[in-house]
Amino acid sequence: MLMDILKKIIFGKPLKSDEIETEKMPVWKGLPILSSDALSSVAYGTEQILLALSVAGTVAFSYSLPIALAIIALIFILVLSYRQVIDAYPNGGGAYMVAKENLGMVWGRLTGVSLLIDYTLTVAVSVSAGVQAITSAIPTAVPYIVEIALLLVWLMVWLNLRGTSESGAVFSIPTYFFIFLILLLIGKGSWDLTFGAHHGIPLQSTFPPAVPAGLSLFVLLRAFSSGCSAVTGIEAISDAVPHFKTPSQANAKKTLLMLGILLSFIFGGITILAVAYHVAPDPKGHTSVLSMITEMTFGRGILYYLTQIATMLILTLAANTSFNGFPILASIMAQDKNFPRMFANRGDRLAYNYGIITLGILASILLIVFRGKTDSLIPLYAIGVFLSFTLAQTGLMRRWLKNKTSGWHRRLFINGLGAVVSFTVFVIFGITKFDEGAWIVIILIPILLWVITKIYRHYEDVADELRISLEDEMPQQEMLIIVPVAGIHRVVAHSISYAKSLTPNVVAFCIAFSDEEEKRMEEKWDKWSPGIRLIVFKSRYRTIVKPLCEFIERIHLHVQYKQKIMVLLPEFITNKWWHNFLHNQYAKKIRNKLLAKYDVIVATVPYHLHK
Amino acid sequence: MLMDILKKIIFGKPLKSDEIETEKMPVWKGLPILSSDALSSVAYGTEQILLALSVAGTVAFSYSLPIALAIIALIFILVLSYRQVIDAYPNGGGAYMVAKENLGMVWGRLTGVSLLIDYTLTVAVSVSAGVQAITSAIPTAVPYIVEIALLLVWLMVWLNLRGTSESGAVFSIPTYFFIFLILLLIGKGSWDLTFGAHHGIPLQSTFPPAVPAGLSLFVLLRAFSSGCSAVTGIEAISDAVPHFKTPSQANAKKTLLMLGILLSFIFGGITILAVAYHVAPDPKGHTSVLSMITEMTFGRGILYYLTQIATMLILTLAANTSFNGFPILASIMAQDKNFPRMFANRGDRLAYNYGIITLGILASILLIVFRGKTDSLIPLYAIGVFLSFTLAQTGLMRRWLKNKTSGWHRRLFINGLGAVVSFTVFVIFGITKFDEGAWIVIILIPILLWVITKIYRHYEDVADELRISLEDEMPQQEMLIIVPVAGIHRVVAHSISYAKSLTPNVVAFCIAFSDEEEKRMEEKWDKWSPGIRLIVFKSRYRTIVKPLCEFIERIHLHVQYKQKIMVLLPEFITNKWWHNFLHNQYAKKIRNKLLAKYDVIVATVPYHLHK
Repeated sequence: MLMDILKKIIFGKPLKSDEIETEKMPVWKGLPILSSDALSSVAYGTEQILLALSVAGTVAFSYSLPIALAIIALIFILVLSYRQVIDAYPNGGGAYMVAKENLGMVWGRLTGVSLLIDYTLTVAVSVSAGVQAITSAIPTAVPYIVEIALLLVWLMVWLNLRGTSESGAVFSIPTYFFIFLILLLIGKGSWDLTFGAHHGIPLQSTFPPAVPAGLSLFVLLRAFSSGCSAVTGIEAISDAVPHFKTPSQANAKKTLLMLGILLSFIFGGITILAVAYHVAPDPKGHTSVLSMITEMTFGRGILYYLTQIATMLILTLAANTSFNGFPILASIMAQDKNFPRMFANRGDRLAYNYGIITLGILASILLIVFRGKTDSLIPLYAIGVFLSFTLAQTGLMRRWLKNKTSGWHRRLFINGLGAVVSFTVFVIFGITKFDEGAWIVIILIPILLWVITKIYRHYEDVADELRISLEDEMPQQEMLIIVPVAGIHRVVAHSISYAKSLTPNVVAFCIAFSDEEEKRMEEKWDKWSPGIRLIVFKSRYRTIVKPLCEFIERIHLHVQYKQKIMVLLPEFITNKWWHNFLHNQYAKKIRNKLLAKYDVIVATVPYHLHK
Repeated sequence: MLMDILKKIIFGKPLKSDEIETEKMPVWKGLPILSSDALSSVAYGTEQILLALSVAGTVAFSYSLPIALAIIALIFILVLSYRQVIDAYPNGGGAYMVAKENLGMVWGRLTGVSLLIDYTLTVAVSVSAGVQAITSAIPTAVPYIVEIALLLVWLMVWLNLRGTSESGAVFSIPTYFFIFLILLLIGKGSWDLTFGAHHGIPLQSTFPPAVPAGLSLFVLLRAFSSGCSAVTGIEAISDAVPHFKTPSQANAKKTLLMLGILLSFIFGGITILAVAYHVAPDPKGHTSVLSMITEMTFGRGILYYLTQIATMLILTLAANTSFNGFPILASIMAQDKNFPRMFANRGDRLAYNYGIITLGILASILLIVFRGKTDSLIPLYAIGVFLSFTLAQTGLMRRWLKNKTSGWHRRLFINGLGAVVSFTVFVIFGITKFDEGAWIVIILIPILLWVITKIYRHYEDVADELRISLEDEMPQQEMLIIVPVAGIHRVVAHSISYAKSLTPNVVAFCIAFSDEEEKRMEEKWDKWSPGIRLIVFKSRYRTIVKPLCEFIERIHLHVQYKQKIMVLLPEFITNKWWHNFLHNQYAKKIRNKLLAKYDVIVATVPYHLHK
């Protein structure tokens, strides 16, 4: 009872199944909620490009402009591709479903694993970048980076265990707030560059006359890979089509296009400002490039701090999208037997509690291992995303080739382009970032794939073992009930009467350590005469478990498994929690041993103590 | 199975009850095993006296001689008193039994609590003094004092969980080794003082001409209290009378007398050497006084190191005696309902596993809190011992007064003397050591007494609740069995057939989240027709627990408790340990909830997976 009340206070009232319906979103609400992941990545995207270029010296920074252009092109290819996913999957399958349906279970699993890794890294990267926004504004917070990050993660775990429906509208505010401030930043910055304070720094002049030494193709590709982290999260809208207000597909497609335009504009704008301002990233990662640009544009005033707060908030929201995505995907995969079954159950508040807590633990491990450094986590990040992009687009290609619906040529081309581009990025990323950390994910994916396949096989084996035909006859067995007794008291009387009401085949079983004890017990029993036979075992060992096991084995031998055995064990249910330490230690031990070793039914008779 | 094999390897084969008989000891084996606690205390007794005197300056050290004389007198009074305990209790009750039988349960409890505290402190003090022997010989070990101490404690826990019978003979070697080396030390030291190297330091000359300033009566009494730590452990022999070879009483009395003589001689000898050598204790406690004396007598050669090793070993043995005493006392008290019942059960190897582990934990806490410093632990030590001495002697006095057996006058006088002396030491100790730590024990004793009384009352309440008369009629109840089902498969078929073999009142219970699901399930059920009714609950919540509870409550309302309910839950018993994570999460939750909330029997039907 106390636990129930506590649960209600901490996690809110349980939701009914119908209440899911109330969560459907219009575009103005869908955009902020589903795009925080993608939009927030501009907070670190440009910085990651500059960091990758910095090996060739600061003169190479201007090459971030063509890289940003390439990434914007990538964004639009993906937007077009994913608009087709929305068309094909109005119920919002997501990459896992698309790959599973069109390419088969094995590829589906691969996609699922990539996505689970991606969700975990989204939390870790977004939270670490969010903390970077804090340390940029408040340098004294630097020693507590990991602690702040963990606090944020578990705050999200808690919020999501409560359920997110009521926070839906609230979640849109920080995203709009961030969009507004960043657009203001780009506007003010451009004005300054053209007419104002920074007037006279022409963009062209930032390009060095010659290609700087050390700026190899490898470095350029690596910088491009780093920037691709800005693209992650773009698929979120296609997963959530049914959550949109009708017409849900049209609304989802509209939202996706708006996201693409906004993302390109903001990412491009910030990169231009960074190059024009000649900003160099902080190698320690305590002050973000976005913070530097903001400070140079707004000064370190109220607008600067508001921008930092907005950045921190949208990054936290981005991490939060994973807390929606991970448990849903784990649940879908669990229903397909590709994940432990417990992840399939919905908890009391329609939230997938196991998934939420698992994600919290995994993200915490990542943040602790990488000391909450964004640029250490980036090399692990986008590889899973682009693998799932590739598989989803390839899946759609197969679909168009098979179904040949109207306009399938055009659709095949777009998804083909998406698949080729995604795969190219995947390969570039894997090669250029391999030694920086991508190897971890490249090793991890096959391992997880193997584990998940083992889980699937196990469930299949169990299902085979349990399958029966509806025509099969029901097995028939006689039951023998054993009631272990240690004396004559109310609990024993109850247990025996329950047993007798079920079957006449009841025996009481008792241990005696000496001949006198045996005799005394038998005499007392005869006097009481509860109508069942008492079997006394002289025990040479001091535990009751062993003789009971011996007894069961003898019965099994004797009647050749014709009788099914049930053991009736009393368990005291105490009134005060500490009383629990004073009872039941033995009943539990016997129960576990019997269940593990024999094919006997163990029935627990609760006795609720009044005092 | 694997666990059983592991248990055998780590803890040895389980012992049978008969095998206890083989552990009976002759005197030559009883002396070392039962006296290690008392004898080992000479390793720190003299040092504690000197430390207490040092507040009055080193000139006061010679006053340790009269104090030692007083303590030797105390030893003989206790030896005489305890020889009478052996006479009166041939089955070796120990102080708890003596106090309980002659003074009543409340005083018995007080004695029990004091003894349990004493056992815990014996481990902590002996281990810390043992580590001191190590740091004396190897000063580089000083930073690891606590770690070494904890290692020793848990080594003993492990050995005792294995059972101590086989180590009996082995245990006598270190004690004889220690006695031999210490006698050699005293012999060589006396020779040197009289004829050899140290010739010409007359003992008398060590006494200062006048009483040194600062040497108040209080300081003298405090020094006396400190020295009383050397007396602890003297009662061990009287607790173990039945473990002696016949005639066990005579053998035990002989052993006790031998212990008294040995202890007095060794304690006196070491104190004389310490005074004659003008040894000053190390205030940091890293080098023991015994180590200094040994070094001055033998030089820092092989004999020195052997003595340190012997000291360490006998102190470890002393700690080990508590690992025998604590679990036995806890078990006896548990049988009297004065301690949680689980302490009453013997484990597989005749060892009281709960008691051993509890003692290990408590001693570890003491060693960590007091950083393994012997002289910080001493003020807590002897107070419990002398309280139990007092209560045991007073109990015997009552016995003589009541029974008036032959020679009861003499016996009354001896035990009266013992009681008065013990009580005096108890009071002196409590006053002079109060602020140094005795207050902790003085506060702890009534708290534990209260807790134990609560435990006793709880067990009495339960016994009252459970008591029935042998003439009472057996209650009669009809049974209704509920089988929760989630589909139609082998496990469900088995469960239903078991239920049907027990009673015709069986219903299957199932949850549907939608109308279609409900209809589908019902159709399938009709086709299968297992011969029992299926009840489908449309659930608005996503858990099965709530609807099941609702269902049970409705039945309870409807038939007004005339039917007893049994719920049959299947549980998968997996073949590989990791498969367990893939099942059963839900069955456990349902089981706990039902048992805690309702008076229903929960039967677990194991299904052993083959793959």
